[in-house]
Amino acid sequence: MFCAMVLSCNTPSNSETKNEEHKSHPNLILTAKGVSAIKSKLGKIPLFDKSLAETKAEVDAEIEFGIEVPIPKDFSGGYTHERHKKNFLMLQKAGVLFQILDDEKYAIYVRDMLMAYAKLYPTLPIHPQERSYARGKLFWQCLNDSNWLVYTSQAYDCIYDWLSKEERTILENDLFRPFADFISSDNPQFFNRVHNHSTWGNVAVGMIALVMDDDSLLQRALYGIKNVNLDANMKDNDGGFINREGKSGFFANLDEPFSPDGYYTEGPYYQRYAMYPFLIFAEALQNKKPELKIFEYKDSVLIKSVNALINLSDENGDFFPINDAQKGMSYYSRELVTAVDIAYHFGGHNPQLLGIAEKQGRVVLDDSGLSVAKDIELGKTEPFVKSSIELRDGPEGDQGGLGILRNNPMELVFKYAAQGLSHGHYDKLSFSLYEDGNEVLQDYGLARFVNIEQKGGGNYLKENTTWAKQTIAHNSVVQNEQSHFNGDYETGSKHHSEGYIFDVTHPDLQVVSAKENNAYPETAIQRTMAIIKDSSHVKPFVLDIVKVASNKANQYDLPFYYLGQLMKTNIEYTSPKSLTQLGSANGYQHLFTEGQGISNGSNSTLNWLLNDKFYTLTSVTTKGDELIFARIGANDPNFNLRREPALILRKKNTKDALFVSIIESHGTYSPVSEFAVNAYSTIAKIEVLYDEPNYTAVEIMMVNGNSKVFIISNTNNQKTQTHHLSINGKEYQWNGPFAFQNIK
Amino acid sequence: MFCAMVLSCNTPSNSETKNEEHKSHPNLILTAKGVSAIKSKLGKIPLFDKSLAETKAEVDAEIEFGIEVPIPKDFSGGYTHERHKKNFLMLQKAGVLFQILDDEKYAIYVRDMLMAYAKLYPTLPIHPQERSYARGKLFWQCLNDSNWLVYTSQAYDCIYDWLSKEERTILENDLFRPFADFISSDNPQFFNRVHNHSTWGNVAVGMIALVMDDDSLLQRALYGIKNVNLDANMKDNDGGFINREGKSGFFANLDEPFSPDGYYTEGPYYQRYAMYPFLIFAEALQNKKPELKIFEYKDSVLIKSVNALINLSDENGDFFPINDAQKGMSYYSRELVTAVDIAYHFGGHNPQLLGIAEKQGRVVLDDSGLSVAKDIELGKTEPFVKSSIELRDGPEGDQGGLGILRNNPMELVFKYAAQGLSHGHYDKLSFSLYEDGNEVLQDYGLARFVNIEQKGGGNYLKENTTWAKQTIAHNSVVQNEQSHFNGDYETGSKHHSEGYIFDVTHPDLQVVSAKENNAYPETAIQRTMAIIKDSSHVKPFVLDIVKVASNKANQYDLPFYYLGQLMKTNIEYTSPKSLTQLGSANGYQHLFTEGQGISNGSNSTLNWLLNDKFYTLTSVTTKGDELIFARIGANDPNFNLRREPALILRKKNTKDALFVSIIESHGTYSPVSEFAVNAYSTIAKIEVLYDEPNYTAVEIMMVNGNSKVFIISNTNNQKTQTHHLSINGKEYQWNGPFAFQNIK
Repeated sequence: MFCAMVLSCNTPSNSETKNEEHKSHPNLILTAKGVSAIKSKLGKIPLFDKSLAETKAEVDAEIEFGIEVPIPKDFSGGYTHERHKKNFLMLQKAGVLFQILDDEKYAIYVRDMLMAYAKLYPTLPIHPQERSYARGKLFWQCLNDSNWLVYTSQAYDCIYDWLSKEERTILENDLFRPFADFISSDNPQFFNRVHNHSTWGNVAVGMIALVMDDDSLLQRALYGIKNVNLDANMKDNDGGFINREGKSGFFANLDEPFSPDGYYTEGPYYQRYAMYPFLIFAEALQNKKPELKIFEYKDSVLIKSVNALINLSDENGDFFPINDAQKGMSYYSRELVTAVDIAYHFGGHNPQLLGIAEKQGRVVLDDSGLSVAKDIELGKTEPFVKSSIELRDGPEGDQGGLGILRNNPMELVFKYAAQGLSHGHYDKLSFSLYEDGNEVLQDYGLARFVNIEQKGGGNYLKENTTWAKQTIAHNSVVQNEQSHFNGDYETGSKHHSEGYIFDVTHPDLQVVSAKENNAYPETAIQRTMAIIKDSSHVKPFVLDIVKVASNKANQYDLPFYYLGQLMKTNIEYTSPKSLTQLGSANGYQHLFTEGQGISNGSNSTLNWLLNDKFYTLTSVTTKGDELIFARIGANDPNFNLRREPALILRKKNTKDALFVSIIESHGTYSPVSEFAVNAYSTIAKIEVLYDEPNYTAVEIMMVNGNSKVFIISNTNNQKTQTHHLSINGKEYQWNGPFAFQNIK
Repeated sequence: MFCAMVLSCNTPSNSETKNEEHKSHPNLILTAKGVSAIKSKLGKIPLFDKSLAETKAEVDAEIEFGIEVPIPKDFSGGYTHERHKKNFLMLQKAGVLFQILDDEKYAIYVRDMLMAYAKLYPTLPIHPQERSYARGKLFWQCLNDSNWLVYTSQAYDCIYDWLSKEERTILENDLFRPFADFISSDNPQFFNRVHNHSTWGNVAVGMIALVMDDDSLLQRALYGIKNVNLDANMKDNDGGFINREGKSGFFANLDEPFSPDGYYTEGPYYQRYAMYPFLIFAEALQNKKPELKIFEYKDSVLIKSVNALINLSDENGDFFPINDAQKGMSYYSRELVTAVDIAYHFGGHNPQLLGIAEKQGRVVLDDSGLSVAKDIELGKTEPFVKSSIELRDGPEGDQGGLGILRNNPMELVFKYAAQGLSHGHYDKLSFSLYEDGNEVLQDYGLARFVNIEQKGGGNYLKENTTWAKQTIAHNSVVQNEQSHFNGDYETGSKHHSEGYIFDVTHPDLQVVSAKENNAYPETAIQRTMAIIKDSSHVKPFVLDIVKVASNKANQYDLPFYYLGQLMKTNIEYTSPKSLTQLGSANGYQHLFTEGQGISNGSNSTLNWLLNDKFYTLTSVTTKGDELIFARIGANDPNFNLRREPALILRKKNTKDALFVSIIESHGTYSPVSEFAVNAYSTIAKIEVLYDEPNYTAVEIMMVNGNSKVFIISNTNNQKTQTHHLSINGKEYQWNGPFAFQNIK
């Protein structure tokens, strides 16, 4: 099925011939000075020593296992894919071990494997799997080939001086140069883009260029292939445009997707993926081209991006699964270990980064890792404090953003960003809610099992398009069962939501509000979300106000993807004997209707249990509103989707709509003591007191008799503005765009 | 809605008048001698001090909160129920604190609350909730009233000497005697039974009898109410017989439900519940009636039962949810803290019990808890080692049993026990499988949310009968869509399965086999399960052979309730657009059909992902066998059931059937590194080589080319027997009832 070439390692030592040459390498990630510093500290810095010991054990086991360089055949998750992936990870580590431990067996291992690749590579056709818009040679896509070269360049740098000139010539002529050309000049649709794919491509070429001291190749990496004309309407497999603007190269990839706050427009999952090439190449540039001052570029955006990324994780360090994102990816990933170490070392020694590094429990084996490990040992660590934060989107920070409200133990993630390139979801003004790092109201994430071959080759599943990207798959408002921008990537890419309020001045009254005017024709949507902690509640609760204004009557659906088991609802509903799909398209075909009710005009409540905690959603509903108990899983013949529930609030034949809800975490259950504490909501009633274009006011009545009003100015967000409003004959006055007051 | 009587605590001290009286109390759980030992050790034994501090903090907070004795109204989970429950727990603790800390505020608190009860109790009618066959006064059932008295007796004992004679007279005449009479003489259908309910009743009466030194009441507790004739066909709310045999009293409750191995026929969840009254009363009897030698009774069955119960828990300490059982109940419960401490103190100081106590992190505040804490401090702790174990069922140990096979990290629970009284499920020869303490193939447990009022008053839901108890809800074979014994409790109670093999001599080849001849008419079922670890597998795998022989053609269903998400199957199936129920009754009405296929005669495989681990079920299927992908949740209008999947193997129109399957845990996935390791099964093929009444032989072919045969003798389980069998012209020879050999 494949050709496993196991090379023997009985090669004579090269060291004698090499010692005489000029010692120019390593100079990419490791440096001669850094290696000497590391050697002088061996055995003295526990975290560094532990990381070194782990790496040594891992590489030694692989050396023991032997070298396998199979003929490429499989998709991700399959044998040949995983083997080549492991190879490049091992090459990089073995190179480092050779430098630090001065043990030639690592150099021999790297050389022998590289030679095996140099023998194989010229014989390879394009990879047999045909799915990618840019097929690789070792892997099914150029992206993975680029991963390979980013890591392998480092290994080559580590043994460069140790190799003979002849060996270097073979490797460069038969492997590295054709490899670099293939992923760049031969695949401009891959290389000349602004995208995480091309970032990997640019960096791969840039890294090998730096090792080989090839300036023309470096220019290609930094500024793209010149004189390439790509069709502006060409798209990739995810439906993303290849290159509309004509921008390309590493610097373009720094300019475009990063906002001034360090937010990467694809979202944290892909930001994490891109962080490694961005930062490792920045480190290499800093070492070899310090005059570029890469870490200061764009107001130190690379350092900021590491901070942004950590803030885009929940209490457990898992990234919020915004856009295409696999749940469970976290700041414990190898990419973040590198990112944190580099950001610490090159970004001003922020002691809170040591707090993350300490949790990660390992460091990279270079100057930056040494720096981190040493300073942890010196007791400089501070805990990383994640506060509420707004991360603006867009190169200039003016394309909406993400608002994260935190009030322990709750975390609210509210999205009003730009499309986010081809991995973006059609989910303007959607949100997700966490408690103690666990999802309470979820963002579904992607429909894919990354690197699990038995699920569609580990690649994106078709349900990613038909379900995960659709608006109805999110906690966001849907008009007439159509996704935002009709699910059209081109249209979506032209627009972004607009932040309206982000005020976290008072920890117990944090408000975020944003507007979306382009998702649906002639329809304006404003969503305001607040995390409020008041004396009537044990924990902070969430107030959610969705205000829709349209020029014609529509149907509006607002889903709440709660996780857990329904305990009680006051909704009177019918329960069908057999389950049928809720709708025919745009994600609706993947939802079953498990129950359907009509509001009698009182608040609708849903009380559920999750992780031994009780939650309640209380929503203002108007007589005639439909309430749909839905479950994911219709038209899912391959069991690709998780069978999770939602409650959908539906208003039919409505021009302007107002959805007002409160989400509370109010109680606990112990299956060991079997005590249920505060199993019921603290909210007696929510009522809309006032709603017209300028102001919306909502009364919140608590079970204990307290009553409060939340008022928002919908058209003036000036903090200094004083507002006066008469509601039911009572006069309210406040400063700034919102107020939370006792009822007069 | 209820009357909360908050009594002030400004009562003058009683101590002066009391010191003169004869010090006879405490002598129930605490003893004068024990209290003095405890006092002498205060501040010296960390675990005891910690438990004391926690108890003090809890009770002090309640004293601060004030006394509330509401008029009974609610079901479990409701306010009045939970308040009265909290009261008795606090009374018991406050009594102990008074003794240990000599602080009168605790005595005052106990007295004032007891007086409030003495004032309320005579005014109470039967509890307004009408669901129980034995309604209480404080609670909706006599069971909870009995809980109250078991705890309150201890509190009374602690302040007995401190109270004035007049106070004691009030409490005994207005509260304790009428209370004890009500739950016994006034409710013989509750008291005169063999059941966990009556155990609580007997012990409640016994405890207060011991405090009041009332021997006639004690006789009632020990031997039941005399001269009561209950209708032998009377049933309780769960459909259980009240009293078929005429046995009653504490001793009868020790004789009947406990097997000689200490297994309690209702299963571990109820064994845990009953452990508290059994052991606390045993401790009281040991203190006051040492001549009864209660801990030696029935070959020390009470001590054995604690050992059995701990063995009935998974790696995390959660009890296997056999029969009616709520998942998550564990040896961390307060009942098990008491049980472990008492078993240690009175049962020969087994150092492994200290291992459990250490995990529990608290001890009871009496002699036994002191003994445990002291010996932990002295370093006597040993880890509790849970090995493979057979726990026989039935008073004589001859009514089948439970076989638990353990080979790290796998635990297999195989049930071939008796009906298990009214909480028993119709699941002969069913099993569940755990890895690292997590369910892989689940036993559903009960359909109830204990003490969560919003779910049917916290009581059993009707789905417990229509779903959870039915055979199809279990990993067990179902004939013609009927439950075992037709789901008839009376019939089920007459029979039990028969253990056939339980051999755990070789850790890497452990076999359990049992037969069931009564579940279906003229049908014999034998199930053999093995945990096998061989060199071709990374972890132990499970071999499962179900052999059915009937006198006529039937339909047989064998479900596997795997947890997690389906990754891949080789089954060709159709996937319906809308989901309909699989069957009309006996639990089938609660299953949706998500997919349906027909075997082409090759093995059927199901590969799934759970907790980042890959599993595969490989089953021998015959051409024409149906394969049903099912999901729980049909006809569940109140969302009482969890939406979890199953694969059902179905053979139609078959007289004799053989189901052979292998379950493997073979791989892992990391969402952080995105590496999938060993994602596929190691089994190439399973084939039935031989199957007739005397022998069944199965060949297991591994992916690596290895091949093994498992042979079982179905009719001779003698360990010394030598067998010869010719299969396909090859001769096999082995000793004992089974063999696992290389293929000849």
